[in-house]
Amino acid sequence: MFNKILIIGCGLIGSSILKASIKKKLSKKIYVFEKSKKNISTIKKINKKIILLRKIDQSISDVDLVIICTPMSSYKQIIPYLNKNLHKNSIITDVGSTKQNVIEIKKKYLKNSLDWIPSHPISGSEVSGPLNGKANLFQNKWCIILNDHNKIKLNKVKKFWKKIGSKVILMKPSDHDQILAFTSHLPHLIAYNLIKTAQDFQRKGNKNIIKYSAGGLRDFSRIAASNEIMWRDIFFNNKKNMINAIDIFTKNLNAFKKNIQNEEDNALRKQLVNSKKVRKQIIQLKQDIAKPDFGRE
Amino acid sequence: MFNKILIIGCGLIGSSILKASIKKKLSKKIYVFEKSKKNISTIKKINKKIILLRKIDQSISDVDLVIICTPMSSYKQIIPYLNKNLHKNSIITDVGSTKQNVIEIKKKYLKNSLDWIPSHPISGSEVSGPLNGKANLFQNKWCIILNDHNKIKLNKVKKFWKKIGSKVILMKPSDHDQILAFTSHLPHLIAYNLIKTAQDFQRKGNKNIIKYSAGGLRDFSRIAASNEIMWRDIFFNNKKNMINAIDIFTKNLNAFKKNIQNEEDNALRKQLVNSKKVRKQIIQLKQDIAKPDFGRE
Repeated sequence: MFNKILIIGCGLIGSSILKASIKKKLSKKIYVFEKSKKNISTIKKINKKIILLRKIDQSISDVDLVIICTPMSSYKQIIPYLNKNLHKNSIITDVGSTKQNVIEIKKKYLKNSLDWIPSHPISGSEVSGPLNGKANLFQNKWCIILNDHNKIKLNKVKKFWKKIGSKVILMKPSDHDQILAFTSHLPHLIAYNLIKTAQDFQRKGNKNIIKYSAGGLRDFSRIAASNEIMWRDIFFNNKKNMINAIDIFTKNLNAFKKNIQNEEDNALRKQLVNSKKVRKQIIQLKQDIAKPDFGRE
Repeated sequence: MFNKILIIGCGLIGSSILKASIKKKLSKKIYVFEKSKKNISTIKKINKKIILLRKIDQSISDVDLVIICTPMSSYKQIIPYLNKNLHKNSIITDVGSTKQNVIEIKKKYLKNSLDWIPSHPISGSEVSGPLNGKANLFQNKWCIILNDHNKIKLNKVKKFWKKIGSKVILMKPSDHDQILAFTSHLPHLIAYNLIKTAQDFQRKGNKNIIKYSAGGLRDFSRIAASNEIMWRDIFFNNKKNMINAIDIFTKNLNAFKKNIQNEEDNALRKQLVNSKKVRKQIIQLKQDIAKPDFGRE
């Protein structure tokens, strides 16, 4: 499909793209640029054909597709190297979890002759790094791609994601950031916040409460174990939507608090029953497995 | 171990106790009282030896152990039947998720000559009913038992839970309700609230956002699918601790909001790193499996 692809940043997502690309034979040559020495030694063991770059120089000029998989806070440092070395036929994409900021960065810093079509595969894990990457990470998961006037290049990006297993959908950056605020960014912040609240209680009460976490808390601890640099970037880059989501969440929580305070039976039960319906929808849409307790024993 | 046990209410927990008791041969005879016709026909298929009671009458007089597994809001209706029919050598226990209210109900309504030693197995699921019950539900899970002056009867209750797989711990009712507010009750309310918030956004934005729930929301939907009668009872019965937990949670969320608003990098990252540690503790304490993404594919 491609002659040369370049993966910049080879953590969980980058290494999963790498493994999927090798498995699906998506490119004759695969270049990888990664800073961490520890990660490099892991990547070397994946496949002998991977070409590890020491720097982003003219050897990348004729790469067909560049996939940036670093934290979003590194994008600005990477762009000058792409401006200097990349041929105009190349396509750039990224996997960042917010998209309006990427459009702004691209407009401000990227050379006019280069094309960057941002994407966001909705898949990840609480674990990080290339040791945890897996070829099937994107299998049947949505990948949101920002629409673009260059249909030929857009189709290549779509094909790339489809080949590695994703279902693709086109979206405007503002819609993307709004939707993800509610389906991903707020849930992560809430998980972090809930764990912090339990820690506060544990400190004050001098009680080891974590061992009783099987009643519900442990589920939240999984997402609250996600990479902090990545999430800092997301929270800051999607600030406006985050604040809005937090405000709606707080308003709803106050309503629940009032229901509990006044023992408003009907109002409370109506809410609980309503929330229950979402699980069924999520399972029908194959966004989660139907097994009770996630199938863990 | 026992001659006769009686399970009142045979949903997820009751039927799991039933299956575990049969498997471990804990009692020569097992009586079950269950109201729902649908549940009764499921229970009949579990084992031919189960004695299904049409009403709680004098046939229960010489039962060794009564385990009440109904929603807590039904306790008051059950007690008169125990007062009338149960012998003073019997032991009563229950599996309710709050305990101060049980102590109050017991003091107010239970005959003085009868002994009720409340317990709370910290195990459950988002699914309900006897079809979902399983003999190993309590395996290696904590069961909190309220301390009691009658050590002989207390030891029998402890033995019962240990035999069906639980690790037991004694606690005061006030400690129980405080701890569970943070490890279970607040997490459930927050999950319900997060799902409600996503639903609100979906309604306003006319966007089908649920299909992008794999980014985090889907994890919360599992706990938000739990039984609403059970959770209504818990939230109302643990009102004081719930309000306190909600207030601490809200205070912390406002601090996070401020961090995001002002892009306070160090403060935010410190919090995220701190929360991450809890996952490790939970896995070390064997409260969850270590597999990324709960092992689901």
